Formats: sequence, structure tokens, C-alpha cells
Amino acid sequence: MRRVAIIGVGITKFGEHWDKGLRDLTLEAGIKALKDAGIRGEKIDAGYVGNMAGGSFAGQEHIGALLADQMGLNPIPMTRVEAACASGGVALRQGYLAVASGVHDIVVVGGVEKMTDLNTNQVTQILGGAGDQEWELFAGGTFPGLYALMMRRYMYEFKATEEDFAWVAVKNHKHATKVPYAQFPREITIETVMNSKYIAKPIKIFDSSPITDGAAAVVLAPMDIAESYTKKPVEIVASAQASDTLALHDRESLTEIKAARIAGEKAYRQAGITPNHIQVAEVHDCFTIAEVLAIEALGFFPKGQGYKAAKEGWTTHGGKVVVNTSGGLKAAGHPVGATGVKQAVEITLQLRGDAGERQVKDAEYGLTHNVGGSGATAVVHIMKRAF
Amino acid sequence: MRRVAIIGVGITKFGEHWDKGLRDLTLEAGIKALKDAGIRGEKIDAGYVGNMAGGSFAGQEHIGALLADQMGLNPIPMTRVEAACASGGVALRQGYLAVASGVHDIVVVGGVEKMTDLNTNQVTQILGGAGDQEWELFAGGTFPGLYALMMRRYMYEFKATEEDFAWVAVKNHKHATKVPYAQFPREITIETVMNSKYIAKPIKIFDSSPITDGAAAVVLAPMDIAESYTKKPVEIVASAQASDTLALHDRESLTEIKAARIAGEKAYRQAGITPNHIQVAEVHDCFTIAEVLAIEALGFFPKGQGYKAAKEGWTTHGGKVVVNTSGGLKAAGHPVGATGVKQAVEITLQLRGDAGERQVKDAEYGLTHNVGGSGATAVVHIMKRAF
Repeated sequence: MRRVAIIGVGITKFGEHWDKGLRDLTLEAGIKALKDAGIRGEKIDAGYVGNMAGGSFAGQEHIGALLADQMGLNPIPMTRVEAACASGGVALRQGYLAVASGVHDIVVVGGVEKMTDLNTNQVTQILGGAGDQEWELFAGGTFPGLYALMMRRYMYEFKATEEDFAWVAVKNHKHATKVPYAQFPREITIETVMNSKYIAKPIKIFDSSPITDGAAAVVLAPMDIAESYTKKPVEIVASAQASDTLALHDRESLTEIKAARIAGEKAYRQAGITPNHIQVAEVHDCFTIAEVLAIEALGFFPKGQGYKAAKEGWTTHGGKVVVNTSGGLKAAGHPVGATGVKQAVEITLQLRGDAGERQVKDAEYGLTHNVGGSGATAVVHIMKRAF
Repeated sequence: MRRVAIIGVGITKFGEHWDKGLRDLTLEAGIKALKDAGIRGEKIDAGYVGNMAGGSFAGQEHIGALLADQMGLNPIPMTRVEAACASGGVALRQGYLAVASGVHDIVVVGGVEKMTDLNTNQVTQILGGAGDQEWELFAGGTFPGLYALMMRRYMYEFKATEEDFAWVAVKNHKHATKVPYAQFPREITIETVMNSKYIAKPIKIFDSSPITDGAAAVVLAPMDIAESYTKKPVEIVASAQASDTLALHDRESLTEIKAARIAGEKAYRQAGITPNHIQVAEVHDCFTIAEVLAIEALGFFPKGQGYKAAKEGWTTHGGKVVVNTSGGLKAAGHPVGATGVKQAVEITLQLRGDAGERQVKDAEYGLTHNVGGSGATAVVHIMKRAF
């Protein structure tokens, strides 16, 4: 297997883009990534794009062809992959495998979702398709509902309080204030979270990531030619994906995302490092409980201790590992198919030293953690500064 | 790149399965393929599944995780890919690349679609997502409508008649009478087709493939271990994918599927053969015009001559190349995400000599041709008997 580098990144502003469709967003992020890589379209050999539900959100499937078409990349093969909210991470992994294996040289990986054209009830129903339609959704189990079960069990097992989780939201909103592409770059207080409405007790609206339009893209190349395009290549030193049961009721535990633990362990092994090497991580905080489960599954903190991290400052600048410098899904926004690719964009900026006011000093290793559904798919990538 | 073999195949009956959901169909095909390969689930390293619109048809996205879960394959990585009606072919290609590159050893590739729970208008609208939502669908361009434009132009350029196309349907229905899994294994006459209703002139209902539930699966392995599982390995000697504009109005020609021509040329080059070597082919006949365009794009017949093939017997048993022994999409049925994988199942059976009454004698090379949308994605695989 060849070494693979990220040689360019691009991202749109995350938010409500009433004036932009799926194609506009995709194009904008893709072109930015090509420009950043200093590469022309005719050098691209193939592409992958993560998108969860273009069919339901916008009546548009066949997103791979759409991206190839809009970027003027025909006739290269361009493939959409879907794994619910992990679609972007899985697309990145397919792109990585294509380059690592020598099948393709230069590969563009995009992620996109256009969600705000529908009302909240419609969006909630569509997102439910990430879970088990027949056993969970049909019985009324929305996504906030499923994560509420996990949060409630976590609070019971480890004596955590709702306020402990609220600190995750406060921390991520604070991070987002330095992020140009974030949807909600505004500080909030513990009171904002605690006084916000329950949407599925104990999850409140401010424990939850928003509904977002947005796209992100990265350009991949074999390491040996990466330096002809960029002075600051970032190497993908590990890529791992794992699956678990689709429905929550079939899991061994409600307080561990097993697929994330397995993917994390595989990734550390592939990279030849331990969790202690990671200085900056983008994890999948679709709800505050999800960030807590993530930092435990990834081995940053022992099981049952993760809920203390945000409050104690362990996961912000100056702490053990800076988690979600982008503001995470919570504050940067969560255009589901784009999220996994956005995470790679943010970590690349950090490892290059291009993260501006939110730069994690001397970051050498970064990690992305992208989850589909309530944990049925998890994808972990580890990146390393390679200059 | 390693040589890759198909070591097992499985398929459900195609039709209206009111008693079976997405998971039942997927499971049935998957388990049949594992049984056929004589392999246990724990040997499987990864999987890909083609599905076009589980979200819109059944409220279920995250089909990769669903398949892993139902087949008891957790925690292996399982990835859904989507390229409209070419989803199955693209999934097969991803599986092929995973094995060829050495990333994985044993890979299962599935394809599934559950379409009959909705009414015809709803299905037509969802299938429209394979085209260009903003430029074609929004303006009222359904899929039959887009292919009608191609058929009309073809008739104008090459002086073909509606009856010429009707022969494609007659031929494929005749083929289907020998196919246990076919949805409509019944002979029809030229009169049946010619007297059937126009759905988008000049396309009649009997020029069109039906709405179908079904699933198909294949198991892939590196050639060097294939023989420990099967005495009749079938090698995938070429895999090629190409893209074209999503919308018809941006194409250079309405009478050529350019992506199919490019994918075909690449595939022949990879296999080191010419179209004349192919004895049996499964091509994407979503409409009768589509089969005519396919056999021209693939080089079986010169441009402007393909319309004569069915009437003259060139594409049935005893002819130059037997096209759609399965009955094609027209008569075997077209569960969109499953179709590309079904094609591989049929060609495998032919090359093994396991195709019963529809066996093409001494077939050594077979080809599958799977198209997404009106031609924005095309995937071509060439298989060879390897025993």
C-alpha cells in the first residue's frame, strides 16, 4: 500500500443556504479544494462523494454523477457512498483506499448535504432512515430519542448530570467563535443549554447539532508526488471502518459505541501510535452525549470519565487533546454527508498550521471520528503532519 | 493488482414481494451467495451494497449497516454505494477494486431495491432522482420521457421504426421464460408491444422495464484462493466505470451513451480482448432503446445498426452475441440497485455452465453493462471462465 497525502482542502460556509442548491455547494467546495491543491481538473483520476439523503432532501440521487458533471470532471468514475451521518468519512476512506492501493493517483473526495429546504419534522423523519426503520423509526424512535436512551443510561451508570453534558455544548460553541465556516460562531452559557427545551429528555435543543446546508472536499495524492503540489502535505496514516447492529436494542451496551472503539483500535494499530499521540481531534458530537461516548471509545479518557472532560477543560486548548476545534457538529453545523469530510478539512488546517486563531500549537497528529446512525457505522482516520 | 474471482452467487425471485422487506430480500440473496461459495460469514472481510433509493422507497438509508447487521457480519466495514440504476455495478466495481488491490481478501457485494410499496407515480418521481432534478425533473422530464427523446432521435437518424424496438422486448421476454428468478417469464408478441399504451411517445409500456423488488449478491476472492472454495471460479478480467453529464441536454449526442462507450473501451483494453470475444452479455435495457444503444456503445454492432439485432436474431441463441439471457431488465425485472449485481450473477451462471435451459454453449467470455440515469454513469465488467 502506498502512502497517501491530503494536498488540498475546500469548504463552504455551513448554514442555511436558501440561495444555493446541492450542485452549487458541491461545486464551491470542490473548486476551492482544487485551487488549494494548485491542481487542474484534468489531473483528477476519480472521485468519491459522501451524501446521506439527497433523494429525500432534494429529490436528487446520483450525486457522484452530479459532482463529476458540475466540476467538469467527466468522464472519470465518480461514486457516491452513503453510511448515514458517516457518509463523508466513508467516502474519504474509499478515496484513501483508491490511492493507497494504486488504483488511482489523484482523487477528489467530497461531502455534501442540502437540508434546509424542508421543515424540521420532515428532516427528522429523513434522518431517522439512519437508524432501523422497521424496529425503531416505525415505533416512533427519532434520533434524538435514541441518543436520549444512551444519555439516560450513561447518567445512571456513571452518575453524570445534565450539566456535565451541557459543558460540551458550551466548549464547542466557544471553539466555533474562531471558525469562519461555522454555522453558529457564538458563545453560549451553561444557562443557555440548561434552560433550553427538552426535545427528548434528557436531551435539550442545545445538546443537539443543528440542521445545516454545506459541502466540503479534499484532494488526495500518493505521498511521493504530493510535494510537487503542496509544501504542506498532510499524510493519512490510518483509515479504519467498523459496523455494529443498526438498532440500539441489539447492542451489548448503550454506553459504548462499539464500532467506534473497534475502528479506533484498528486505526491506532495502523498508525503505530496510541491515543496519547493525538493532539487534536474532530469527533462526531451530533448530541453532547455523542462527544462523551466518542472520547471514551477513542481511548482519550477511561470509560465513565469522559463526561468530566469538557467541564474540566481537558478537551479544549491547553488540555490533553483539543476536541472539535471546528466547533464540532454542534456549533459548526452538521450537513450530514459533508461532516466526515469537513472533519478532515479541519484537521488538515490544524496540522498545516493554517488554523488561525484556533490553531493547536505544534500539532503533529490529528484524528477524525465520524459515526453513522446511532453507531452502526464508525470511521476513524488519523492524519500526520508530513513536512 | 491481483486477479479476482467470483466464487459464489445468490439471487431472490424478482417481483412484487409484499411479504418481504428490504432486509429480508438482502438477507436471502446474501445467504444464498455464501452457501453457493461454501463459505462462512466469519471469512468475509468487507462488503459493498448497491441501492438507489432505500431512503425514498422505504425510509431506510444506511443500507450497508443493515446488510452487515442482518447477515451477522458485524463488525466488518460494509459500504453502500449509489449511482442510480448503476448502483449494483458500481458496488461490484468497489468490491473488485478492494480485492484486486489487496485491501481485502473475501468481499461480499450485494444489490437490493424494494420498490413496490409505493404507487407508480411515487416510484416514477423517485426514479427521476437519477436524472437532473433541477433541469429535467422539475420541468416534468420523467425517465420514460428522457429515453423517449433518445428513441425519437434514433428513429430519425437511422430510419428505425417502433416495431424494430418492439423486437427487443419480444426477444427478452422469450429469454425470460427459462429464468427461474424472472418477474415476467412469459412470451409476448410484437402485437402485444405495438398495441400497448404510450407512456412517453414513442415509448410504450411494453418497451419499458417494470417496477420490481429483489436482491442479488456475489462473493469475491483473490484468484489464488478461489479454487479452495469452488471448482468453477469465474474471473473478473475487467472493471471500468465512466461518467457523463447528468442532464441529457448537455450531451454531444442523443443516440450514443458516451459513458458506456468509454467504459466499454477501457474494459476491452484491460481484458485484452475485442467485442468479438464476448459470447454472452447482460446489458441495461431499462427501455428497448437502451438495449439498442448498449449493443452499439459496446461495439457489438456498428452505430445505427443495433436496432436490427433483435429482429434479425443477432442477439439471441445462435446469434453473434446472446444479449440478456436473464430476460434483461425488461422481463427479469429491474430492482434498480440490484440490477448490476444480478447481471453478474447471470453471467457467472453462464460461464460456469450452470444456466440450465438458457445456457449459451461453451461460453468463455461474458460482459455486464449497467447504466445510471439516462447515461451519466456507466459500468462495464468482463468475466471469463477460469476452469
